[in-house]
Amino acid sequence: MTTWINLSAHEIAAAVRGGRMTARQSVETSLERIRQTDGSLVAFTTLTDARALETADHLDARIAAGEDVGPLAGVPFAVKDLVDISGIITRAGSRINMDNAPAAADASVVARLEAAGAVLVGALNMGEYAYDFTGENDHVGSTRNPHDLDRRSGGSSGGSGAAVAAGMVPLTVGSDTNGSIRVPSSWCGLFGLKATYGRIPRSGTFPFVDSLDHIGPMARTVPDLALALEAMQGSDTGDPACVASPHCRASATLDQGIGGLRIARGVGYFAPAEGAARDALDRVCAALGVDLEADLPGAAAARAAAALITAAEGAATHVQAMQTRPEDFGRPMRDRLMAGALVPGVAYVRAQRLRRQFAEDAAEVFRHIDALVTPTTPFPAPRIDSDTLRIDGREQPYRSHIGIYTQPISFIGLPVVSVPVQNAVGHMPLGVQIIAPAWREDVALRIARALELSRTCAAPVAAFEKT
Amino acid sequence: MTTWINLSAHEIAAAVRGGRMTARQSVETSLERIRQTDGSLVAFTTLTDARALETADHLDARIAAGEDVGPLAGVPFAVKDLVDISGIITRAGSRINMDNAPAAADASVVARLEAAGAVLVGALNMGEYAYDFTGENDHVGSTRNPHDLDRRSGGSSGGSGAAVAAGMVPLTVGSDTNGSIRVPSSWCGLFGLKATYGRIPRSGTFPFVDSLDHIGPMARTVPDLALALEAMQGSDTGDPACVASPHCRASATLDQGIGGLRIARGVGYFAPAEGAARDALDRVCAALGVDLEADLPGAAAARAAAALITAAEGAATHVQAMQTRPEDFGRPMRDRLMAGALVPGVAYVRAQRLRRQFAEDAAEVFRHIDALVTPTTPFPAPRIDSDTLRIDGREQPYRSHIGIYTQPISFIGLPVVSVPVQNAVGHMPLGVQIIAPAWREDVALRIARALELSRTCAAPVAAFEKT
Repeated sequence: MTTWINLSAHEIAAAVRGGRMTARQSVETSLERIRQTDGSLVAFTTLTDARALETADHLDARIAAGEDVGPLAGVPFAVKDLVDISGIITRAGSRINMDNAPAAADASVVARLEAAGAVLVGALNMGEYAYDFTGENDHVGSTRNPHDLDRRSGGSSGGSGAAVAAGMVPLTVGSDTNGSIRVPSSWCGLFGLKATYGRIPRSGTFPFVDSLDHIGPMARTVPDLALALEAMQGSDTGDPACVASPHCRASATLDQGIGGLRIARGVGYFAPAEGAARDALDRVCAALGVDLEADLPGAAAARAAAALITAAEGAATHVQAMQTRPEDFGRPMRDRLMAGALVPGVAYVRAQRLRRQFAEDAAEVFRHIDALVTPTTPFPAPRIDSDTLRIDGREQPYRSHIGIYTQPISFIGLPVVSVPVQNAVGHMPLGVQIIAPAWREDVALRIARALELSRTCAAPVAAFEKT
Repeated sequence: MTTWINLSAHEIAAAVRGGRMTARQSVETSLERIRQTDGSLVAFTTLTDARALETADHLDARIAAGEDVGPLAGVPFAVKDLVDISGIITRAGSRINMDNAPAAADASVVARLEAAGAVLVGALNMGEYAYDFTGENDHVGSTRNPHDLDRRSGGSSGGSGAAVAAGMVPLTVGSDTNGSIRVPSSWCGLFGLKATYGRIPRSGTFPFVDSLDHIGPMARTVPDLALALEAMQGSDTGDPACVASPHCRASATLDQGIGGLRIARGVGYFAPAEGAARDALDRVCAALGVDLEADLPGAAAARAAAALITAAEGAATHVQAMQTRPEDFGRPMRDRLMAGALVPGVAYVRAQRLRRQFAEDAAEVFRHIDALVTPTTPFPAPRIDSDTLRIDGREQPYRSHIGIYTQPISFIGLPVVSVPVQNAVGHMPLGVQIIAPAWREDVALRIARALELSRTCAAPVAAFEKT
């Protein structure tokens, strides 16, 4: 039976635009679902229910008057709590930001999604200041994985992942600096888009690493990602990286198929030796008929440089609070900032130079291929009760392995769609990255759509409410 | 009597294009002048005489065939020795680079100037790796000031300044990271242009501080600067900062006068208390009828941040050689690199953030004015035999004061013409900066041209050969 929670954003919008559902019904259903399920998930930090219902009623009035209210009409969405919501404190997963004044205005992406007819219903939990891959949060509690409540959601956009996987909303906004959209997309079994650096404006969002921060959508279908991208993208003087962003019309080409595309399977650095990641990559490559292989030379050094830039820029943002109120940071955050404060300037500068070289080398690779396919994460969501996993033949702490495939890609701002594979190994989903050259989101989305149509990849709502 | 050495670049080009002088005559005169005078100046490190004569003969043949060989026909020029010349080692003022292979190709700016008809005659002395404001060089000897051989040329483009001031060539190419075109322009009594960051490509030049490096022309007239800018400017895929540079047609508007321009005198940070700099600023402002005042808020912090970024990026470039062959650096360079290696990454990142803020604040100031007028240097060229000057009422080391007015401006990439004032205080010239908003070189050049036409500013060839 099709219930609201199984509907995608474009299905909800079609129903609302076609008069088969009101925006208010859609939003009320979402709010009800959130209230029922969030106690066990800890995905939301704030519910903007009054605002949401008012917005929905306004949309319904406009629709009744014959107006076209946009391609996301009546679609409830929520944003990672580093995205400004007028009148709400942007806590960015921290305790410290709670001393800040409430945001004076909505972030650009909120305003743009609402201008396309979507309705904001709340703010989503995240790892502290986005410096996290697991979805843990010492201040408000860690987000659980809807596919298995004993497992991590992934992070730092953990609430953004869990909210979509649990059918609370069909669309969320996350952020990705080293993998923070892609990791929870992988572990929660979603489609997630990290667009080209500079495509989606970060105006009105709390920064983590200016050189690497991206804002992007997470959803359960590829057309939903395309609609969200089209609503969120475009030049914005408030974001220096996004002042002259070209326009992408991804929806128009989504169903053109993958004929003629040169798609390569990641080898070398990007080849998982075994397990679920190997299986997921095999299945995606088989479905796409991939017969090319590629590696990105220098990927290991690129990942190290990304980690170093992250540490130094993160520390630069928080060094003052580290000096005056260190006890107000969560312990993992404090340790990371301490390490970041010790990075020498010379190392930071050399990491930025390496980035330019790696970007040039990668661009050379992409002259010969249209897309590169690699795992998103090296393993599916780990259990909450253990800090170790069996990796490369021995039990070891897993946290430093999570970003191995995502970090080199965000480091140079390439667009990636993480597609969900329901794994043959174990019961948890796992993501595969479809990586395209800069500004070719359309190519990555087209390939993801082919995988969706062939049922190789799908993002069903988690059945956790039955457990 | 008008001799070749008093001719400007556009006068030489007019004579060559009009058949009154051959390119060979022009180039031979230049080479002869260099041979006669460089023994006491140490402006050149390499003479490309064979290449120059061959190029000149080729131009003459094309002119004889009725071809238009360009607006700089037969104009001899030379480049700071961090600019690649095919077949010559780009030493960048160092001993260490002498182990490098000769450059495989000319730098973009060399190719572009020659495409406009100019003729390269050699490479020019500079401070080691451009980390210098005085024109000193431990390896090949320090460049002397043609107006007084007992005084500094200024640096790091010291050879570029002395060669023009001595009438060896009418046009040189320098580089400016914190003031290295403007300081020798001030001390040698020249017009110097530091264009907007990203206007002139740095492809094929040895980098100092990628965030701050500019390439630009030095000459004895404003029309010569405009001609050189027009030849050198424009997009170049070899320089990431210069991939989408808009085009500037400065020559066309040079003589439009300054009516309607809102020109402000620098106050606050930019107000010299006394002496030659105060006198020069007074005279320029009086000639322009300036009745506005402006300061750039945060200029002192901006200068500190520029120094810090310079130190860290400089050290990052040379850290390997510092570890393996420290004795091959000059002592001042070694000390600066050691200091740079100690800059924390957090301090570097915060300096880059301060730069963005300072740029925004300065842009706000430039919404109300079209140009800001400040001294170029706080004092004229010091004597070589002393390391101190009387500054702010006490005798003190002067080196750290030289860049006080230039550093905050290059820090945010604004275009500046340094105009020469023959001072009433003492016998040495001193420069004044005409600073315009980004991409408005045309405004700065128009104001400089008005000062030239009113004879407030002039750059006569130094009479040193008579001493």
